[in-house]
Amino acid sequence: MSRILTNEIDLETVEKSRINDVDFDNIDFGREFTDHMFSCDFVDGEWQTPKIMPYQALTLDPSARVFHYGQAVFEGMKAFKDDQDEVWLFRPEDNFNRINISAARLAIPEFPKDYFLNGLKTLIQLDKAWVKKGDGNALYIRPFVIATEPAISAAPANEYKFMIICSPVKAYYKGRLSVLFAEKFSRSADGGVGFAKAAGNYAAQFYPTNLANKKGFQQIIWTDANTHEYLEEAGTMNIFFRINNTLVTAPTSDRILDGITRKSVIQLAKDNNIDVEIRRVSVKEIKEAAMDGSLKEIFGSGTAAVISPISAFEHAGDVFEIPDLEDSYSTFFKRKLMDIQYNKSDDQHGWRYKV
Amino acid sequence: MSRILTNEIDLETVEKSRINDVDFDNIDFGREFTDHMFSCDFVDGEWQTPKIMPYQALTLDPSARVFHYGQAVFEGMKAFKDDQDEVWLFRPEDNFNRINISAARLAIPEFPKDYFLNGLKTLIQLDKAWVKKGDGNALYIRPFVIATEPAISAAPANEYKFMIICSPVKAYYKGRLSVLFAEKFSRSADGGVGFAKAAGNYAAQFYPTNLANKKGFQQIIWTDANTHEYLEEAGTMNIFFRINNTLVTAPTSDRILDGITRKSVIQLAKDNNIDVEIRRVSVKEIKEAAMDGSLKEIFGSGTAAVISPISAFEHAGDVFEIPDLEDSYSTFFKRKLMDIQYNKSDDQHGWRYKV
Repeated sequence: MSRILTNEIDLETVEKSRINDVDFDNIDFGREFTDHMFSCDFVDGEWQTPKIMPYQALTLDPSARVFHYGQAVFEGMKAFKDDQDEVWLFRPEDNFNRINISAARLAIPEFPKDYFLNGLKTLIQLDKAWVKKGDGNALYIRPFVIATEPAISAAPANEYKFMIICSPVKAYYKGRLSVLFAEKFSRSADGGVGFAKAAGNYAAQFYPTNLANKKGFQQIIWTDANTHEYLEEAGTMNIFFRINNTLVTAPTSDRILDGITRKSVIQLAKDNNIDVEIRRVSVKEIKEAAMDGSLKEIFGSGTAAVISPISAFEHAGDVFEIPDLEDSYSTFFKRKLMDIQYNKSDDQHGWRYKV
Repeated sequence: MSRILTNEIDLETVEKSRINDVDFDNIDFGREFTDHMFSCDFVDGEWQTPKIMPYQALTLDPSARVFHYGQAVFEGMKAFKDDQDEVWLFRPEDNFNRINISAARLAIPEFPKDYFLNGLKTLIQLDKAWVKKGDGNALYIRPFVIATEPAISAAPANEYKFMIICSPVKAYYKGRLSVLFAEKFSRSADGGVGFAKAAGNYAAQFYPTNLANKKGFQQIIWTDANTHEYLEEAGTMNIFFRINNTLVTAPTSDRILDGITRKSVIQLAKDNNIDVEIRRVSVKEIKEAAMDGSLKEIFGSGTAAVISPISAFEHAGDVFEIPDLEDSYSTFFKRKLMDIQYNKSDDQHGWRYKV
């Protein structure tokens, strides 16, 4: 175990890596973590010197505000290893910007950009052996902030912890998904926190998703809370519809996450002369398009899943199957994205970021 | 330190109480905790033997789902000491029922009633010296449940911790409050989790409340997310309006918490021949009533605050002052409630519960 101060990070490394104990061929998403973690405390009105230390348990008072008032935000990112053993991130500054947007909405102090990028690079370099080569293999990176102050009055905390933990992963979803269009439950309100990666947004979806699972659907596509007539997002994914050869997706709003994979797909569509319409998408339109055959595809986009094709949906008791396409947009965009992420193609927009 | 098994609780007591270190005349809400805490783990599909142990820090993996997905619910209760040194709870079975209603909505397994009531009584008996006599003094009791399973996939956890911690308190709010009627931000959506005491509901209010604080208002009265035309609740309190001599409050819904103090006030009003209307209350109606003088009072009800009179509100730039009344309903209901809580009056509805 060595302890050094580098680039203003207090660095303590493990004596012996746990990597040989891990069966990389059989890992569940998000259950194995690398040797080290990043941690930085907000105390006395400022973020203190960041630390990288052996992955370890946290000690928190039972009154820590995160347990009571859900003051917690997070990000999801991935690192990829190319054939030359170089490791790449994908648009990390967008994740940095978004975690601070989420934080501001939850009255959490913003985190400094150099602490984030420097911490991230140092951590991934240290745990580089955990990033495995090969399509679908990646290091899933989870930055998150929690309110640690021990006080149960319902008010923003004065103390926080910003952490980054890393988990080696393979593909998140397997195969095509069946989804339910929400008719009764809602994910977010106008004027609420739906656009933020706020912890509480996720727990709120578990019960309705459990009900959907029991009916044989893996995910819910949420509709607007007011009318349930417009399709929004899937909670862990933004959603795209292909109608004939046009790609359609809902605009971001204070209810819908500004997905980084979503905006990358939109840019790639433009780059490849695929028409994209960013507009409200009604349940009625999609059901009619499924009936008349103009609905060619539905797919989700997100960091964990990259692109998830959807094979069927249900709404109001009507079930629609979407035939599998030979030349699907979902396959096209997934390939395009992964080629950029794994450094196999040009990167005309500067999305790759070398660690 | 003794360790015994009593009534199926694994009991470990402190060697020496910290009570003499506490300045009971100068305590901030929710920052001091009693000697002991209750803890029960959900593992392998069932709640394990409950424990009461010295108040202490928790050790959790950084990947514990509560930090990432906000799977956490809580309750707020109080214990009161009467002149004969007996300690009383107020409608504790209602808190028990509600924490399980909240839990179900967040896909958290329900907690057994006997574990809850037995644990609560044993814990309070052990820390009875921390319950101080005198109006406004109470032991604030915080049952809560958090998802502890170390896994960052976005799904309900398989492991949880149900805890009860206790904090000696004086009155929560001091004096009459100024409030803002929400025009843009929202607390909850139809089909969402607003009726649950879900951790994430609270963090979502902090940023808008900070903005209100900067304008000189202590709280926000939330309006419906769709139109912002109807007054709902204040986030930590339900809200009552007195128009002439009639008490008006919004009905509970999937957006509004079914407050125990709220329903006690409604019952006490009926008992005392005060007309109560449970119906939608529009911003327009309240502004007009403030202008024509028929709005006599606004007050909040909640466990922490009991009854909080409101002296002024703002909406769309219009500020309305509510003159202080000699014989206010808020004073009347606060006195009635506290007399029952402190065992100074009859308890015709069986709300008191002896510890």
